[in-house]
Amino acid sequence: MAARLQTAVLGASGYSGLELAHLLARHPRTNAPLLFRRSAETVESALLPSIPGNGKTNGSRAVRPFSWSALKENGVDLLFLATPHAVSRELVPEAVARGLRIVDLSGAWRLKQEEHRAIYGFKDSSAQTAAELTERAVYGLPELKPNADQIPSAALVANPGCYATSIILALAPLLSAAVVDRDRGIISDSKSGVSGAGKEPTARTHFVSVADNFSAYSVFGHRHTGEILEQLELTSPEFTFTPHLLPIPRGILSTIYVYLNREMNVDEIESCLQDFYKGKRWVRIFPAPSLPEIQFSVHTNYCDLGFCLASDHRRLIIVSCLDNLLKGAAGQAVQNMNLMYGWDEAEGLE
Amino acid sequence: MAARLQTAVLGASGYSGLELAHLLARHPRTNAPLLFRRSAETVESALLPSIPGNGKTNGSRAVRPFSWSALKENGVDLLFLATPHAVSRELVPEAVARGLRIVDLSGAWRLKQEEHRAIYGFKDSSAQTAAELTERAVYGLPELKPNADQIPSAALVANPGCYATSIILALAPLLSAAVVDRDRGIISDSKSGVSGAGKEPTARTHFVSVADNFSAYSVFGHRHTGEILEQLELTSPEFTFTPHLLPIPRGILSTIYVYLNREMNVDEIESCLQDFYKGKRWVRIFPAPSLPEIQFSVHTNYCDLGFCLASDHRRLIIVSCLDNLLKGAAGQAVQNMNLMYGWDEAEGLE
Amino acid sequence: MAARLQTAVLGASGYSGLELAHLLARHPRTNAPLLFRRSAETVESALLPSIPGNGKTNGSRAVRPFSWSALKENGVDLLFLATPHAVSRELVPEAVARGLRIVDLSGAWRLKQEEHRAIYGFKDSSAQTAAELTERAVYGLPELKPNADQIPSAALVANPGCYATSIILALAPLLSAAVVDRDRGIISDSKSGVSGAGKEPTARTHFVSVADNFSAYSVFGHRHTGEILEQLELTSPEFTFTPHLLPIPRGILSTIYVYLNREMNVDEIESCLQDFYKGKRWVRIFPAPSLPEIQFSVHTNYCDLGFCLASDHRRLIIVSCLDNLLKGAAGQAVQNMNLMYGWDEAEGLE
Amino acid sequence: MAARLQTAVLGASGYSGLELAHLLARHPRTNAPLLFRRSAETVESALLPSIPGNGKTNGSRAVRPFSWSALKENGVDLLFLATPHAVSRELVPEAVARGLRIVDLSGAWRLKQEEHRAIYGFKDSSAQTAAELTERAVYGLPELKPNADQIPSAALVANPGCYATSIILALAPLLSAAVVDRDRGIISDSKSGVSGAGKEPTARTHFVSVADNFSAYSVFGHRHTGEILEQLELTSPEFTFTPHLLPIPRGILSTIYVYLNREMNVDEIESCLQDFYKGKRWVRIFPAPSLPEIQFSVHTNYCDLGFCLASDHRRLIIVSCLDNLLKGAAGQAVQNMNLMYGWDEAEGLE
Repeated sequence: MAARLQTAVLGASGYSGLELAHLLARHPRTNAPLLFRRSAETVESALLPSIPGNGKTNGSRAVRPFSWSALKENGVDLLFLATPHAVSRELVPEAVARGLRIVDLSGAWRLKQEEHRAIYGFKDSSAQTAAELTERAVYGLPELKPNADQIPSAALVANPGCYATSIILALAPLLSAAVVDRDRGIISDSKSGVSGAGKEPTARTHFVSVADNFSAYSVFGHRHTGEILEQLELTSPEFTFTPHLLPIPRGILSTIYVYLNREMNVDEIESCLQDFYKGKRWVRIFPAPSLPEIQFSVHTNYCDLGFCLASDHRRLIIVSCLDNLLKGAAGQAVQNMNLMYGWDEAEGLE
Repeated sequence: MAARLQTAVLGASGYSGLELAHLLARHPRTNAPLLFRRSAETVESALLPSIPGNGKTNGSRAVRPFSWSALKENGVDLLFLATPHAVSRELVPEAVARGLRIVDLSGAWRLKQEEHRAIYGFKDSSAQTAAELTERAVYGLPELKPNADQIPSAALVANPGCYATSIILALAPLLSAAVVDRDRGIISDSKSGVSGAGKEPTARTHFVSVADNFSAYSVFGHRHTGEILEQLELTSPEFTFTPHLLPIPRGILSTIYVYLNREMNVDEIESCLQDFYKGKRWVRIFPAPSLPEIQFSVHTNYCDLGFCLASDHRRLIIVSCLDNLLKGAAGQAVQNMNLMYGWDEAEGLE
Repeated sequence: MAARLQTAVLGASGYSGLELAHLLARHPRTNAPLLFRRSAETVESALLPSIPGNGKTNGSRAVRPFSWSALKENGVDLLFLATPHAVSRELVPEAVARGLRIVDLSGAWRLKQEEHRAIYGFKDSSAQTAAELTERAVYGLPELKPNADQIPSAALVANPGCYATSIILALAPLLSAAVVDRDRGIISDSKSGVSGAGKEPTARTHFVSVADNFSAYSVFGHRHTGEILEQLELTSPEFTFTPHLLPIPRGILSTIYVYLNREMNVDEIESCLQDFYKGKRWVRIFPAPSLPEIQFSVHTNYCDLGFCLASDHRRLIIVSCLDNLLKGAAGQAVQNMNLMYGWDEAEGLE
Repeated sequence: MAARLQTAVLGASGYSGLELAHLLARHPRTNAPLLFRRSAETVESALLPSIPGNGKTNGSRAVRPFSWSALKENGVDLLFLATPHAVSRELVPEAVARGLRIVDLSGAWRLKQEEHRAIYGFKDSSAQTAAELTERAVYGLPELKPNADQIPSAALVANPGCYATSIILALAPLLSAAVVDRDRGIISDSKSGVSGAGKEPTARTHFVSVADNFSAYSVFGHRHTGEILEQLELTSPEFTFTPHLLPIPRGILSTIYVYLNREMNVDEIESCLQDFYKGKRWVRIFPAPSLPEIQFSVHTNYCDLGFCLASDHRRLIIVSCLDNLLKGAAGQAVQNMNLMYGWDEAEGLE
């Protein structure tokens, strides 16, 4: 039997990093991952607040201060970055130079176009290196054809944003089939659980602020907009995206509104989705009139898609659900790892 | 000092009826309301499960089986119906014939156009009486001009639906100013707390089904669509409305998408809203870029409105919040009563 | 008509201070309160995150940096301190010297016995002044006889802790009647909503930490233990108190276990409670076998009491519920103000 | 490799049955289970409302009307009953007669003593058969010595109640070590998520009744009391148990109060727990002063135990947490199956 892969997770004390650590610990092809954090002190992951669905580990597992030498000494081949984008932007050049393969869960390397990167305000020490890496980075949404082809040989996989995954997977089949009236505009009204806002305690994530409440935020200005536009080849005025904060720990539901450019019926829509995702393990199409709900995909790596067609056969609503920490982050990162090493896409995710 | 008005509430054991009973019990112009239910047995309201925000009354208050004679004996002048629409449809003809004034919280009398009523499947004993009452019924949204003029003298006020109130109040100023590109379509993505689904225990309202979950329902088929179309004078293809179920007890937030028919700036939008609701006590306009959240209006009779304008000056998002049991039901019913009897719109609602 | 009282609230941006500001703004005997905070910058209370049940105020109201001169210029007679105990401990000596009357919502002045104060670690600039004020301070639980007698003339009222209020009110009648077997121990297993933990965002108050969770904390070490022991004249080994954190915004339920020193029946227990609270406006006794629930008292100033007696007529469980921000903090502070100025205990609280 | 075991689940549309179906479908030693319900109509489990943590199955799985012949035709060896106790009481005699082995998740066969069974009101068709089966039934709590010895050869395993599991596992080590002052009384103040109340929609499980609320129920009268008394060999006055309903979907936390009959220190308590559960896979002892929280054990088969000792070295509080649907029901049922067939206790549960 082949030797197991040695991985490391930097940022293992955040929600996505913790979820990733749990997935890798159970993955049949990998050793227990090395866990790192940017802070100078070592903490026991067993003492970290857990999130629903992740049992406290039975023995403790150290999350240690990050160092390149520790990676080398332990023979790490694949490094996951569950870090803020500025940290990923800073570390990836050296990591690639050291011959590591990388799955980066931040927004640092997802965008090809400068106009979309501006919102992140990256400060690169070498503009040329950054440009080269931007070119080489592969957007890690394996259900889309060009990505699926490039992931196996990629040195740097830019794992997609959680909202972006839910929206791109819903729209790609219809845009690919050229049945959308883009001039009338596409709208995604998206709702996310609180773990999407990160583990940092803030006034906005305080229980009393969230419970019994619901609110829109970052209207016309959310960072994921850029990657959605790029992947779907849309222009800014064609696409409107409104994120909202749900009083639940995890899960995303996007309600997506499109106008068709010709009259279609339910079977045609269903075929369009089914054909596009034929053989894709982690997308489920709900037969009309059933619709996905957040509970169905939480704690799984599925992106669930369903739809409703108006009686005018022109107005279409797609409902897309996923777990923001799995298909929207750590699960998709493992799915990308599986493809990078030639394993079955589902390994360690069932 | 003038004698206090005697009111009665039929359906006082439901959420809206209970909320109404509490408001009327504290109203400075009304006696303690008589409380009725359609069932044959008397229950103590003190034993009814309370909803958040409604303290258990100190001392019990009987909710008795309904009878016309009890209304007469107690000198009831105004009858509130917090009943299913079929019950309201059945009782209102006799109530009007007996000289009672009525505020009906159901959907029974809100719709003037037959095509919109079809979804309710009304079965009237006298089609002619029903037609006459339909004609006489006044839609009880007092912030709209024609309604405000007719409510004071109305015998039958059809209290608006909760979703409808949140949507109509958001859109009326812009449609009235004729700045909306109706051809591109108007979308309301609306989210409601569970009390909007009624007190009947069902698989859908079970705690385990709702908590940690979020789902769309009645897509392209919600009953409130008709009254929104009628009040805003829209055609069906111009308006899309998707309700969702939020894991919170009460509150509605509607995220409403419109395309403007000319470029506008933030000040123009704000003026449009401010001017339309000048002097209106129960609508609050949030200055951009602040947006209402459900917590701000819950347990109040306010409808809160805010908006965001895209940098293209064409795409506009309006966020509208209210408490589905107050401005969306019982509070608005009291507001209508105040106008019917010439009192200040805010009496008993602060 | 008498002139209205001018009050001020220091700490008006915390949960209790905000609730107090709302109550005072509506109180028929007081002017709008002056709102202060210890920080140097002025904020608009309208921009502060609201808590469920507190509507956003319609115009803004400034919360200004605190100064003694502002109190004097505005003729403030009564100062509410909704501040950390160290701040209250520091400010009260000067406030009393300036002739102000004070209701302090912190734990600074509740304790007469040094052994119970130790846990707070007070640092007084003048030990003698602190000792004198400790002597003069009146524990503001108006349902207990000695307090009720002293509050009207008190210069300094130490408003009780939220847990303490729920527990003392449950036990006082039985201990007063000397029917409790204190040797077998009294246990209060208490559960509180998250607003009791304050508005500071921490890992512990993060939505994801609280939702879908439940936990005990400060076992055998909660600060409120001292005031419970003092008010009920219990020794430490006789009383065990375990606080827990509930995934709800507000409300406390204490399940209290006592062994009776003789066999009693349900009627005797009920009489014991009813007699003790005869004429007390803000305590409700639930007739057996009905029990209070958190929903019944939230958003009210009531403390609700119910009980169950075992078939051995010896084991008694008392369930005590209240809203930690009202009867457990701001509501009780207003109740104390009412008594300090000779008004009806219920003014501004209904 | 050995042939896989064929199992069946009756009651597969309830919460415990659904959870069990998911566990068995993934178990390495069993075929996909046959799923049955008592109703005459077949439903697709994929259409059943899911609970958090249970993804919708990919592809539907029929839950068919129950018949003995279907069991026989499919070679079922082990039958799980996730049925109401009356149904289990009725079916088990025939199942045993047919040579099936049974794990019953209801309360039908847990109790040896008539006085404890009375509360269930069993109606047996043959009193003699019922008495024989009562004698043969093994209480399925494998961490207790006598049970562990008998489970491997048992024909009928009575799977413990969820509350009972959390309480018995916490108290067994201390009672076994005879360090508890039983005369002073043992108290368990227990709190459960709503799935423990079953899937039937009732006024009590309605979202609006549960959310933002907390309440005690079945005080001095909960059915699990009998099995706790029997397993721990306690008399009724020695043990007080109060269940409460938490506004969360799943999880139990019991706060258990005991008085020690001699002074002990923290290390002695910890050793007492550690020694008792040495080698037991599914009990975790938290080192003092850390305490388990519901989040740590939810979605796992662990029972987590922690404790606090008062400074008087006499008062001890044990906190016990588990997932009511796993270690409290379906997980423990699989653990029992593992022991019945000589497999590792952890198979299919990690």
